[in-house]
Amino acid sequence: MTKPFIQDLVNDMTLEEKLAQLTQLGPHYWGLDDTVDLTGPFKELNIKPQVMENIGSVLNGIGARNVIDLQTRHLQASRQKIPLLFMADVIHGYRTILPIPLAIGCSFDMEACERFAEIAAKESAAAGIHLTFSPMTDLVRDPRWGRVMETSGEDPYLNARVTESMVRGYQGKDLKEKGRIAACVKHFAGYGAPEGGREYNTVDMSLGVLREFYLPAYKAAVDAGVAMVMAAFNTIDRIPASGNSKLLRGILREEWGFNGVTIADFNSVNELIPHGAAEDGREAAEKSLAAGLDIEMMSTHYLNYGAGLVEEGKLDISLIDEAVVRVLELKDALGLFDNPFKDADPLVDEAPTPSVENLQAARELGTSSVVLLKNDNNALPLKHGMKIGLAGPFATSIHVLGGWSGTEKDPAVSLYNGISQKTSAADIITAMTGELGSMLEGVFDVEDEIEEAFQRLKDCDVILAAVGENQQDTGEGGSKTNLRLSTNQEKLIWRLKDTGKKIVTIVFSGRPLELKPILEASDALLQAWFLGTESGNSLADVLFGDYNPSGRLSMSFPYSVGQIPVYYNAYQTGRPYDPLYPNVRYVTRYLDCPNDPLFCFGYGLSYSSFDYSNFNVDAADQVVASIEVENTSDIAGKETVQLYIHDVSASVVRPVKELKAFQQITLAAHEKQVVSFEITREMLMFYGKDDQLVFEPGEFDIMIGRNSGDHFTQRIWIG
Amino acid sequence: MTKPFIQDLVNDMTLEEKLAQLTQLGPHYWGLDDTVDLTGPFKELNIKPQVMENIGSVLNGIGARNVIDLQTRHLQASRQKIPLLFMADVIHGYRTILPIPLAIGCSFDMEACERFAEIAAKESAAAGIHLTFSPMTDLVRDPRWGRVMETSGEDPYLNARVTESMVRGYQGKDLKEKGRIAACVKHFAGYGAPEGGREYNTVDMSLGVLREFYLPAYKAAVDAGVAMVMAAFNTIDRIPASGNSKLLRGILREEWGFNGVTIADFNSVNELIPHGAAEDGREAAEKSLAAGLDIEMMSTHYLNYGAGLVEEGKLDISLIDEAVVRVLELKDALGLFDNPFKDADPLVDEAPTPSVENLQAARELGTSSVVLLKNDNNALPLKHGMKIGLAGPFATSIHVLGGWSGTEKDPAVSLYNGISQKTSAADIITAMTGELGSMLEGVFDVEDEIEEAFQRLKDCDVILAAVGENQQDTGEGGSKTNLRLSTNQEKLIWRLKDTGKKIVTIVFSGRPLELKPILEASDALLQAWFLGTESGNSLADVLFGDYNPSGRLSMSFPYSVGQIPVYYNAYQTGRPYDPLYPNVRYVTRYLDCPNDPLFCFGYGLSYSSFDYSNFNVDAADQVVASIEVENTSDIAGKETVQLYIHDVSASVVRPVKELKAFQQITLAAHEKQVVSFEITREMLMFYGKDDQLVFEPGEFDIMIGRNSGDHFTQRIWIG
Repeated sequence: MTKPFIQDLVNDMTLEEKLAQLTQLGPHYWGLDDTVDLTGPFKELNIKPQVMENIGSVLNGIGARNVIDLQTRHLQASRQKIPLLFMADVIHGYRTILPIPLAIGCSFDMEACERFAEIAAKESAAAGIHLTFSPMTDLVRDPRWGRVMETSGEDPYLNARVTESMVRGYQGKDLKEKGRIAACVKHFAGYGAPEGGREYNTVDMSLGVLREFYLPAYKAAVDAGVAMVMAAFNTIDRIPASGNSKLLRGILREEWGFNGVTIADFNSVNELIPHGAAEDGREAAEKSLAAGLDIEMMSTHYLNYGAGLVEEGKLDISLIDEAVVRVLELKDALGLFDNPFKDADPLVDEAPTPSVENLQAARELGTSSVVLLKNDNNALPLKHGMKIGLAGPFATSIHVLGGWSGTEKDPAVSLYNGISQKTSAADIITAMTGELGSMLEGVFDVEDEIEEAFQRLKDCDVILAAVGENQQDTGEGGSKTNLRLSTNQEKLIWRLKDTGKKIVTIVFSGRPLELKPILEASDALLQAWFLGTESGNSLADVLFGDYNPSGRLSMSFPYSVGQIPVYYNAYQTGRPYDPLYPNVRYVTRYLDCPNDPLFCFGYGLSYSSFDYSNFNVDAADQVVASIEVENTSDIAGKETVQLYIHDVSASVVRPVKELKAFQQITLAAHEKQVVSFEITREMLMFYGKDDQLVFEPGEFDIMIGRNSGDHFTQRIWIG
Repeated sequence: MTKPFIQDLVNDMTLEEKLAQLTQLGPHYWGLDDTVDLTGPFKELNIKPQVMENIGSVLNGIGARNVIDLQTRHLQASRQKIPLLFMADVIHGYRTILPIPLAIGCSFDMEACERFAEIAAKESAAAGIHLTFSPMTDLVRDPRWGRVMETSGEDPYLNARVTESMVRGYQGKDLKEKGRIAACVKHFAGYGAPEGGREYNTVDMSLGVLREFYLPAYKAAVDAGVAMVMAAFNTIDRIPASGNSKLLRGILREEWGFNGVTIADFNSVNELIPHGAAEDGREAAEKSLAAGLDIEMMSTHYLNYGAGLVEEGKLDISLIDEAVVRVLELKDALGLFDNPFKDADPLVDEAPTPSVENLQAARELGTSSVVLLKNDNNALPLKHGMKIGLAGPFATSIHVLGGWSGTEKDPAVSLYNGISQKTSAADIITAMTGELGSMLEGVFDVEDEIEEAFQRLKDCDVILAAVGENQQDTGEGGSKTNLRLSTNQEKLIWRLKDTGKKIVTIVFSGRPLELKPILEASDALLQAWFLGTESGNSLADVLFGDYNPSGRLSMSFPYSVGQIPVYYNAYQTGRPYDPLYPNVRYVTRYLDCPNDPLFCFGYGLSYSSFDYSNFNVDAADQVVASIEVENTSDIAGKETVQLYIHDVSASVVRPVKELKAFQQITLAAHEKQVVSFEITREMLMFYGKDDQLVFEPGEFDIMIGRNSGDHFTQRIWIG
C-alpha cells in the first residue's frame, strides 16, 4: 500500500511536476559543472530552466560536497520539497577500484561478490550517491563486444548468483542503513547479445532462448529485491526495450511482480526515433510511458509531450501517477524524505586515500579473480630469490583499473610495484616496459627493442611477459573484430621463449582474447583481467603463491575470432561431433578448428592438484549426486566443484549441459571431502514450447566435475 | 480433388504398404550398387528385404539404364505396380556442370536462372531422374558456412526471384513434358543460419526475422508451384524442422496452401533422437508424421513404428493416407503411371560428351556469373598479343566444377585452356601452377618457388594470379573459421606485385573470402566462383572482353572474419554510425573495422561506365520512381538498376534498406535510358508485431542506384 504522505504528494502535484519527477538529467543542468554553457542544453531539450525545480533525479552528480550543495539548493527552490535522487555509474568500486565484473565473476565466490558491492556501496554512499547502475547481468557469448568486461559471463546460473549477491551487497536489508545504496539491474533485456558483438547493434533471438539464457539473471535480481531495472538500448522482437510493453509490463511487472522503478538507458527514450520505432518525441513518450518505463534519462519527451498526450486521451493519467508513486516510494525507502543527504560525508569522501580496509579487500578480491590457465614445468609459483625478468607493456603500467573506473583519483599498483614488495628490486630486471602505445597497437616495428629485451633477460631464472589490450579498447563502445594480442607482443613472447627460460605470460584484458598464438610459447599463462587499484599486489600474491589461484572462467576463450560464438551450454544438434571419429565430414564441425573453445567455461588451475573419484547418483528418495574430491598436493587449495545437468530428450531441444550448482571447498594438503548436491525439481524445469515452465519426466545426464569440459557423467531416469 | 484411381490405390493398400510408400531409400538397397553388402544396412534399419517391393522412392539412383532396370524389376515385384519415384541431388547441372548457385544468383538475370534449371532438368530427365533436390533457397549471412555456395545469397527478394525462376526452369508448365523434372525447394526453414556458420549447428531467430528474411523465398517457390518441400536439419524454436508442426502444417500448408509433398532431409527423422527431441524411433515417427512430413529419407521409423502408432491411437490413419495420396499424386503429375521411365534415355544419357548446346549455355551462364570487383589502371580487359603471365594453384587446375557436381564425367576447362583459345600459347607464360595441395593449405614454405615465379613473369605485360580455396572446402560439411587465402597465395600475389606489372587476381571460391589482404596488390580483382564444366572458357570470354562483365554480388564480402555477420539489410539501430563523425565512440561501430563490408550486396563493375542522373519520385497517382542511366563509355554493357526502400518509422523496427526490385538493362556505347519502378503497396508491407502482414502509412526512403551502398535517396510520404 502506498503511504498516505506519498499519495498526498502525488495528489498535490501538477501534471508538469509529475513529468519532471519522471525525468533524470545530468548535473550540469543545475550548474554543477560550470564548464558547460547551459543555454545550449536547455534549448536542445526544449525545456525552461525553471523546470529544474521539479526534476526527480540526477545522473552522475557525485561527490559529497556537490550533492549536499545541490540537494540543499534544490529543496530551497522546490515547491513540494521532494529530494533529488542521485544515481551514478559505480561499476566496480567508487574510490577503491575493484576488479572488473567479468573478473570478479570468475571468483565463483558469492561472498566475494557481495563484498565487492558492499565496498562500492559504502564509498558511494559517502560520496552522496543513492543508487548505482549496477549490477549489469547481461549474458554474453561474444568477446568482440567491449562490454563483456561489465558482465559475469556466459552462464545464466552463475550470472543469477553473482547478480543476487551484488544486489545484497549494495542494498543490504534496508536501503536506509548507513553505507547502503539502491541497485539497478541492467540492461533489460538481452543487451549482451548485439549481433556481431558490435555495440548497440540489433539483438535477435527466439522467445525460448530469451527465457532460457538471458532472462534468469534479471529475474534473480528482482527476486533479490533490486530497487530498479534499466531498460536496454536494443530491440527485443524488433521493438526497442525502452518502448517494449511485453517486456516491461508483461514479463517484468505482471509475471515477475516487480514493484520497483524502471528507468531508460542514456537517451534511450529519444532513441526510439532513430530506431524508427517512433516518428517523433511525442510518439516516443507515448510508447515508453505506455510500456511502463518510469524514468526518462537525459531526454525530455515525457516533460514536453506528456501533458499533451494525457489531454488528447492517448495516455491515461493513472500510468503517470503510478510511475511517480514508484519513484517517490524509492526515495522514501532510501530515507531521503527524512535525511535528503543520506550518508554524504565530505570528510570520508575527500580523504586523501581510500581506507586501508577497502584496499585490503580490493587486493583479496583481485586474487580471487585471476585465472591460472596453464602451468607447465612448475613455472609458478615464483620462488623468492629468483632472478625475475619482467617485460611487456603492462610490466610497469598503472593503466589497469579497467573501463568505467570513475574518478581515478588514486593510481593503481603496477605489476612491477606489486612484485617489488615480494622480492628485492635487484632481482627484477625489466625490459620493454615502455608505455602502452606502440606495443599495443603494433603500428611500429620494434624488432630491435625485442632483440634488446632478449639480451637483457636471457640470464634470468624466469621471465614474466605482461601483455594484453589497452583498457580503453574495452567497455562501452569498445567492440573490436581482432582479438589477438598485437603482433609486437606476440613476437616479444616468442623471442623471449628462445631464452630457454620459463615464460610466464600474464594477460591484462577486459575480455577473452585469442591466446592460441602464444600458448605454446608460454609455460604458464595467467589471466589477470583488470583488477583495479590493487592490481599489482593481487597479482604478486598469486605469482609468489601467497594466494593459491582459484578463479574459474565465467566465459569461454575462443581459439580464434572465426569460432565465435563459442560457449558451453549450446543446444544439442542432430549431428553431434564425435571426437572418436574426428574426420567424419557430415557432423557439426569446422574443417579447420575444433568445436570446443581453447579454455572452457568453469576452467581454471590451482597450485594444488585435485583428484575426483567415487561419483555416485543416488535416486532412492531424493536424487542426490556426490563425489569425493582429494587434494593430492602438498599445499592447501580451493576447488570449485561444478554440477551440470542435461535433459536427454524433451518436448523442445535442450542444451548439452547446464550449470545448476557449484560448491567452493578449501582442502588442506592431502585432505579429502565428499561433495553432495541435491538434484531439485527446479533444476530440471525449463520453458516448454508454450512458454510455460514445465518438468518432464525422463532421462537426465548428471555431471559433476572440475569444469564444463571435464566431469563424470551418469544417466538416470527421474519421474 | 483426388483422382479416383489414386483413392482406389490407397484404399487397396495395407498399412505397411502405405508406410513403405512414404519411405525413401538409396539404390544399394535394391542391389544397384554392388559394392555394398546388403545384410548390414537392412539389419541396421531393422527392415526385411521384402519391404523393398513397396518402397515409394529412390534417393540418388541415377543413370538411364539403372533406372529403367530398377523400375522394371520393381514393377514386376510390386503388388500394386506403383512406380518408383527417382529423386536426386542435381544442384548445378547434371552432366554439364553449371556455375554454383551462389554464382548464378550473381547474374541477377532471371532468364539465366531459368535456363540453368532447364539444362539441368533436360539432362537429368534423360538420366531417369524425376525430381531434383533443388533449388536451395536458404538465406545466408555467414560465409563461414560451406553451403553458401548452394544458395543465392543474403537477400530475400533476390532469393525469391532466383528460386521461382529455377522452379519454372525445372518444372516447366507440366511435369509430364519431356525434359522437365519436379523441383524440391529446401531446406524449410532457416537452414542457412547455423550459429557460427558451423554446419548443422543450432538455428535461432525471432519469428519476425524468420518471416521477414528467411521465409519469403520458400514461399516464392510454393507460389511458383514447386512440387516438393524439404524439411531442414535444424531447429526452429527449439523443435527440429522435421518434427515441427507449426512450420510444416501451420505455415506451409495452412497459411501458404501448399498441396505438394514434404520430405525429410537425409536421416533427419531419425535425427530427432540425437537432437533430444524424440526418445526413440517410435517417438520420432510420431512427431514427424503428426507434423505433416510425408516422406522419411534414409531411415525407417515410419515403416517400423507407424502401424503401432495407429493401433495405439497415437496417430490418426488419415494423416498417413493424406501423405500417401500426395506422393501418388506427384507420381501421377509426372506421368509415371502411364510411363514409369519418363524420359530415361540411355542413348542421350550415355553420350560420349555433353551436348554442344548445353556446353555453350554453360559457358554463357558462367560469363553472367563472374563479378568484377576492382579494375584500376585498365588492367582488364586483356588485349590480344599481350604477354600474359599466369600463376597460382588455379592457373591450370580442372578442379573448378564446385561442390555437388554429380558424376564429374567430363573434366572442366581450366583457366589456361580457356585463355589458350584466345591467344597464342607462346604468349602465355606459366609459373607455380602446381596442383592445389601445398599452395592452398599453406603447410609448406614455398619462398623459393615464389621467387622463381617472380623471375619467370617479371617481363610479362600483365600477370594473372589464379588463387582461391579448395573446392572440397565448400559445400555441405565445409564450414571453416579462416576465410583468408592461404599465406602462400597471399605472398605470391604480393611478390608478383613487385614486378611493377598489372596484377589481375582471379578468385576461385564457393564463398566470399577475406580479400582485403590482397586488394591493394591487385590492379584488377575478378570473383570467378566455381563455374563448372566451361569455367576456363567463360573466364577467358570475360578477361578478353568478349563478354563485358555484368555480375553483381548476391552476398556481402567481409573485411575480415571478425566482422561476420555483415549484410546490407540490417535493422536500423538507435545509435547509427555517421561517417561524418568517424571518431564518435558511442555509436554502433567497431574500433578497428568499418561497419560496411569490403564489397557490398549488389556491387559489381563493368568495362563500361554508367552515370545515374535525374532521379525522380512521382507520387501523384501511383508512386513511380525513375532514374536516367547513361553508358558514358565506348562499349556496350549491362547495368543492373536496383530499387531499395526503407520505412522510416513503423510499429516495429525496419531494415535500413531492402531490395524491392531491379532491372537489368543493356546500353550501347553512350546510350541513355530512363528506368522506372512502380512502388507497389506490396513493397511497403511487412509482418507487424502480431505476425500479420500490414501496411502502415508514413514516410519512406526510396532509393535507386547501382548497388546497396551507392544510390540516390528521396524521402516521401505514402498514405
